[in-house]
Amino acid sequence: MSEAATRKRGRGAGGGAARRAERSAVSFETARFITRNIPDFEVLTPEAIEIIESNAEILLQEIGVNFVENPEGLQRWRDAGADVDGERVRFPKGLVRGLCATAPASFTQHARNPERNVEIGGRNLVLAPVYGPPFVRDAAGGRRYATLADFQNFVKLGYMSKWLHHSGGTVCEPTDIPVNKRHLDMLHAHMTLSDKPFMGSVTEPSRAQDSVEMCEILFGKQFVQDNTCMVSLINVNSPLTFDATMIGALEVYAANNQACILSPFIVGGAMAPVSVAGTLTQVLAEVMVGVAYSQLIRPGAPMIAGAFVTSIDMNSGAPTFGTPEAAKITYGAGQLMRRLGLPYRSAGSFCDSKLPDAQAAYETANSLNAGLLAGVNFMLHACGWLEGGLVSSYEKFVMDADQLGVLHGLAAGVDISENGQAMDAFREVGPAGHFLGCAHTQANFKDAFWRTEIFDHKPFETWFEEGSRDTQTLATALVAKRLAEYRQPDLDPEIAGNLREYIATKKASMKDAFS
Amino acid sequence: MSEAATRKRGRGAGGGAARRAERSAVSFETARFITRNIPDFEVLTPEAIEIIESNAEILLQEIGVNFVENPEGLQRWRDAGADVDGERVRFPKGLVRGLCATAPASFTQHARNPERNVEIGGRNLVLAPVYGPPFVRDAAGGRRYATLADFQNFVKLGYMSKWLHHSGGTVCEPTDIPVNKRHLDMLHAHMTLSDKPFMGSVTEPSRAQDSVEMCEILFGKQFVQDNTCMVSLINVNSPLTFDATMIGALEVYAANNQACILSPFIVGGAMAPVSVAGTLTQVLAEVMVGVAYSQLIRPGAPMIAGAFVTSIDMNSGAPTFGTPEAAKITYGAGQLMRRLGLPYRSAGSFCDSKLPDAQAAYETANSLNAGLLAGVNFMLHACGWLEGGLVSSYEKFVMDADQLGVLHGLAAGVDISENGQAMDAFREVGPAGHFLGCAHTQANFKDAFWRTEIFDHKPFETWFEEGSRDTQTLATALVAKRLAEYRQPDLDPEIAGNLREYIATKKASMKDAFS
Repeated sequence: MSEAATRKRGRGAGGGAARRAERSAVSFETARFITRNIPDFEVLTPEAIEIIESNAEILLQEIGVNFVENPEGLQRWRDAGADVDGERVRFPKGLVRGLCATAPASFTQHARNPERNVEIGGRNLVLAPVYGPPFVRDAAGGRRYATLADFQNFVKLGYMSKWLHHSGGTVCEPTDIPVNKRHLDMLHAHMTLSDKPFMGSVTEPSRAQDSVEMCEILFGKQFVQDNTCMVSLINVNSPLTFDATMIGALEVYAANNQACILSPFIVGGAMAPVSVAGTLTQVLAEVMVGVAYSQLIRPGAPMIAGAFVTSIDMNSGAPTFGTPEAAKITYGAGQLMRRLGLPYRSAGSFCDSKLPDAQAAYETANSLNAGLLAGVNFMLHACGWLEGGLVSSYEKFVMDADQLGVLHGLAAGVDISENGQAMDAFREVGPAGHFLGCAHTQANFKDAFWRTEIFDHKPFETWFEEGSRDTQTLATALVAKRLAEYRQPDLDPEIAGNLREYIATKKASMKDAFS
Repeated sequence: MSEAATRKRGRGAGGGAARRAERSAVSFETARFITRNIPDFEVLTPEAIEIIESNAEILLQEIGVNFVENPEGLQRWRDAGADVDGERVRFPKGLVRGLCATAPASFTQHARNPERNVEIGGRNLVLAPVYGPPFVRDAAGGRRYATLADFQNFVKLGYMSKWLHHSGGTVCEPTDIPVNKRHLDMLHAHMTLSDKPFMGSVTEPSRAQDSVEMCEILFGKQFVQDNTCMVSLINVNSPLTFDATMIGALEVYAANNQACILSPFIVGGAMAPVSVAGTLTQVLAEVMVGVAYSQLIRPGAPMIAGAFVTSIDMNSGAPTFGTPEAAKITYGAGQLMRRLGLPYRSAGSFCDSKLPDAQAAYETANSLNAGLLAGVNFMLHACGWLEGGLVSSYEKFVMDADQLGVLHGLAAGVDISENGQAMDAFREVGPAGHFLGCAHTQANFKDAFWRTEIFDHKPFETWFEEGSRDTQTLATALVAKRLAEYRQPDLDPEIAGNLREYIATKKASMKDAFS
């Protein structure tokens, strides 16, 4: 495919034969981020958009939002012309939308390997892995608390995934490391085990500051001030509440010109009304306030407008995924965010299943398809999510990552060139013939169709003889193969040493904290 | 949901308590066919459409199609102004498109229960089950040749599936019945075990005639002449070949005002060029010829323009499903068929997996989503398809049928009524509250979200205590429950007797044939 920019790698100290063996065994290809050559699917009529945008303004005028334990933030809002009453902030019509205008419609996130830079916004889609689970699961070990070793494994798998453009952030929580030191080890893993772009810490403003400082070591101090080297995830405490921790991290990143995803986190029916239009109204209001606030910190700070929205199972209270309501919100929020002129984050490999089984795959595919067609620009959780986000699944990581290739193929649209029209093939083959051997097929078959790296297309008998393996079993084998083939990307030894030293010094200055 | 028209049933001879028990245990709800309140997704630009339509005309003028072993058909083409050379037919520009104009844009297919009638065309989507597999699979019995007992089971499952509007046709091949008698038993099962609309036989013109005659017993002779009571599947022998068997069946149905799906059957790269635009050109050309021919038989005969298209695995030669190429063809063909003014058939629960596992579900979900957004009007194979169509899967049938509820929910679009806007909920809850108990949620939660009948949303601990069941295991249980709860719909005993007699007489007149 044209969007797959092969990246040849010249590592290995062995002789020519060893290098050839390495090249033949290992594929380190990473596809270029997706640039859509297809339209967006729009579920909202112009009238519906008008109603929702108007209702969001009414919400912000009449009800407002809470800025919790953040006197400086409240003062910023007062200075900007908002009405502040205790921790409640209400906004004159148009204020926050107007403030959003200085946030860029599109920006570059730099990777330490410039070939891996990504453009976030416009017609682009950048894919990043699962974020946040405290548990991991694989077929051999079952479900267990995640460790730093798991974290490193997921970074390696992400690095080796052709269709994943981004290394992500908390690919799982390394629960064997104290809470106040984890971010250092997580960033270190992203910076050294991969050369794809990554995310910073948001669990404390001081950890955001550490993330910036580690980036300064990796990229250079001035480069970080002039360029965006991190995208970090700031969740709104929906409904309509902005807490001091997350907003404190946002303040650090915005001040340093680093990007944040400002994302309502909504289980519909609990943190938002049970209706799609009501939820979209709330998402829009919350995003506008958060993005506007970032522009009060530093006009022009890069932001991504997020929508993490699930529905709820009214029997168990559990969040549900891959539902029609979630899809409609994903489509609708895309329209609203494009009108705000902001890059858009939504969708992912969402599922509620406990296993990487059919339920997981239906739910995930529903969300991935919606995300592509909704015009999402940054898709966090694009692979590896299991059990409502409690679990990072090894097998599902590679299964989902394979499916991301489907999104690349679909986004490429229809080739209508003379070669794409294939009229010569018809002239060669005619009625009742077959096309397998014709010149057009021979010239095009290698790149014509997306190819899975995991699914089984063998005849039944072969499949049966090979052990009647299901998708999970095939995925277990692929995970093992990938981790065995992994090679660390080069990094300047001086930078590597400085990172190690920074982390050691930081850790020595802290007592362990586990909450 | 508003589209689910509950159908209460008053069977059961027991006392009040027994009837209450039956009502609480059995759900015979069937949703109304989908009427989309969302737009279509269009992957082709106006320029691309123009090129493809122009190329299809060139194909028909220069290369033409073969009408095999059909001298009467060739004469019809000659009379209509085509250029006939042996079995090759070439068409002056615009001839076949012009002939398609008399086929209706939309029509009613009648069911013996008028509440189950379906409207095929326009903004509607009618869902029908898998068609054609010689094998069945379930967890207990594995993969085996299908029998009439299996066939009857699948008809029962279809009858009891809330989101399935249509009983389908060859839900599996009853291989224990001679080939020349099968159609009689299959039609009998659809007519007596279900009251949803169904399909006729196409494996011989005489079997099509039998199908019409059995419909005349069920619906009345004049009713069948005046109304469409069957939709039957006529595959083109792609590329560009129309064989006598299938076209013979089409001739019978068209003459009797019964509907046919005229459907190219294409494994891309083998029966069509390896490009999306080339395949679309061929699909359009083949559909136009087949539909035009039906209008030569009887102007106004109801037709559905089909596109069954998969890509090919260039390693094994196996057809592949849920691919980006298939999705693009599904979207593009929808645009072309709407411009022809014909109802459109495509997509389904397609997968290549041998098991109802994650691969099966990803592939199926990709196709189902594409089918909904592509504007498909009649979706055959909407549930139960496994292993490239070789297998009807019991478990996958109920898993897929559950997912069809997602399509219903998405198609309903966004409710932008005052209730949908939910502004009162915001006023009641305010920031930092929760919506679970508010008046708007209480008034709406029952219908707000699509609910699965099979997926697991329980807490991990509960799920674990219940045996860590995967989707297939949950589906096995649901299949058993459904078949245990099945009740046959009422049928006039005289009609039932006449059907039995017709079949007995027919069978007595034939020798068994097994090929």
